[in-house]
Amino acid sequence: MVGKSQLKLIKSLRLKKYREEKRMFIAEGRKGVLELLDSDLVCEGIYAVDPEALPPLPLEVVPVSNKELQQMSALKTPAGVLGVFRIPAQEEPLSSGVVLALDDVRDPGNLGTIIRLCDWFGIPQLLCSPNTVDCYNPKVVQATMGSLSRVRMAYKDLPEFLAHDERPVYIADMDGINTYEASWPEELILVMGNEANGLSEAVRELATGVLSIPRFGEGNRTESLNVATATAILLSEFRRNNP
Amino acid sequence: MVGKSQLKLIKSLRLKKYREEKRMFIAEGRKGVLELLDSDLVCEGIYAVDPEALPPLPLEVVPVSNKELQQMSALKTPAGVLGVFRIPAQEEPLSSGVVLALDDVRDPGNLGTIIRLCDWFGIPQLLCSPNTVDCYNPKVVQATMGSLSRVRMAYKDLPEFLAHDERPVYIADMDGINTYEASWPEELILVMGNEANGLSEAVRELATGVLSIPRFGEGNRTESLNVATATAILLSEFRRNNP
Repeated sequence: MVGKSQLKLIKSLRLKKYREEKRMFIAEGRKGVLELLDSDLVCEGIYAVDPEALPPLPLEVVPVSNKELQQMSALKTPAGVLGVFRIPAQEEPLSSGVVLALDDVRDPGNLGTIIRLCDWFGIPQLLCSPNTVDCYNPKVVQATMGSLSRVRMAYKDLPEFLAHDERPVYIADMDGINTYEASWPEELILVMGNEANGLSEAVRELATGVLSIPRFGEGNRTESLNVATATAILLSEFRRNNP
Repeated sequence: MVGKSQLKLIKSLRLKKYREEKRMFIAEGRKGVLELLDSDLVCEGIYAVDPEALPPLPLEVVPVSNKELQQMSALKTPAGVLGVFRIPAQEEPLSSGVVLALDDVRDPGNLGTIIRLCDWFGIPQLLCSPNTVDCYNPKVVQATMGSLSRVRMAYKDLPEFLAHDERPVYIADMDGINTYEASWPEELILVMGNEANGLSEAVRELATGVLSIPRFGEGNRTESLNVATATAILLSEFRRNNP
């Protein structure tokens, strides 16, 4: 059984304001919850309609009714299992190696996909501008499929960070170098822009290289690739050159 | 003004059954509608809350109220402009060159993104298994951002098609050849699988090559990439080798 105040607290976590106040977030679905449990994250509680269906866990699972889960869940169709986790303290971004940075990426599905890509391609650090969607937003957590615990996240003022870092800064933009012909140093900051407006002027000014993914076909007029698919292609190119 | 029966007809087009019966589909949003108007597709009608805001068009725009648009629209927040277009007759898939094939891709957002990728990378033919989501589904049309008219679409039984085609058949799957080390012939059929279940056994048996996108990082456990991001990476590799 889950108490009323607990239920209210969990429900509030779909809003960033309350996540920041309580320093907690929710994850939903058996797979995602189990993956986060198997990470360094601190779990505050697991709630399930059918606790018997879960493997043995290091903490007690609270049985809840479908109606209670519906009230806690941020999903239209709750996934049967919900976990509450502590938001870890933000660590300083890694000062060596490769960093992917996002300049105001707003769509939760895009950020979730990008976190999963960082995990896949072994990109240890994802750096987000303060206006990038919150990585503890339930829709982002859902889309990461458990990758969230394996990628180091930080929110920082990008121009300030870039100005004080010595690594080359590559941006993805129009009219740059052909991505396939670019040189890809091992240590690098790659910045991707907002879905509608691309990169901010302040970030553009700090770029040391501009990469473009070539378009193919005569008279091709496709305007742009989705930011998550463009990130997939660029991280793939980075790793092809730096396995 | 839009008549009641017209309104009812347009509303019905969010269902595949009626799209197939009427051979029509809807597109929403200024940009998408204008791009489809500028293609070979036949337009049956344009409806807009503010017709004056549109550039001069070869057919009359029907002014509608917000309430009427709401009733026609398949979107939660209608985009102000809606076009009704005729579904073109399905042409036989191209028998030469490169083909991307989808084995039961179900998510409209994924199919839309993949159509956009085909357009970007100049892949002329997209071949879908009969259980792949309908490309005239309003959410797919929305996600293609106008690319739909520039990629040749066909729905066909995949195993039958593959069995009678002489081009090499590459599939994206686990435990295959490293994508970056594969040879990429100019003529090729590349098949991507379903979001949850991957490729069907029948398609697997007809493969002449299996490609895997390598994972990086020690002990990496990420299970799979989203089908649209995996497609992005593979089409990029195809074009890098066949510019």
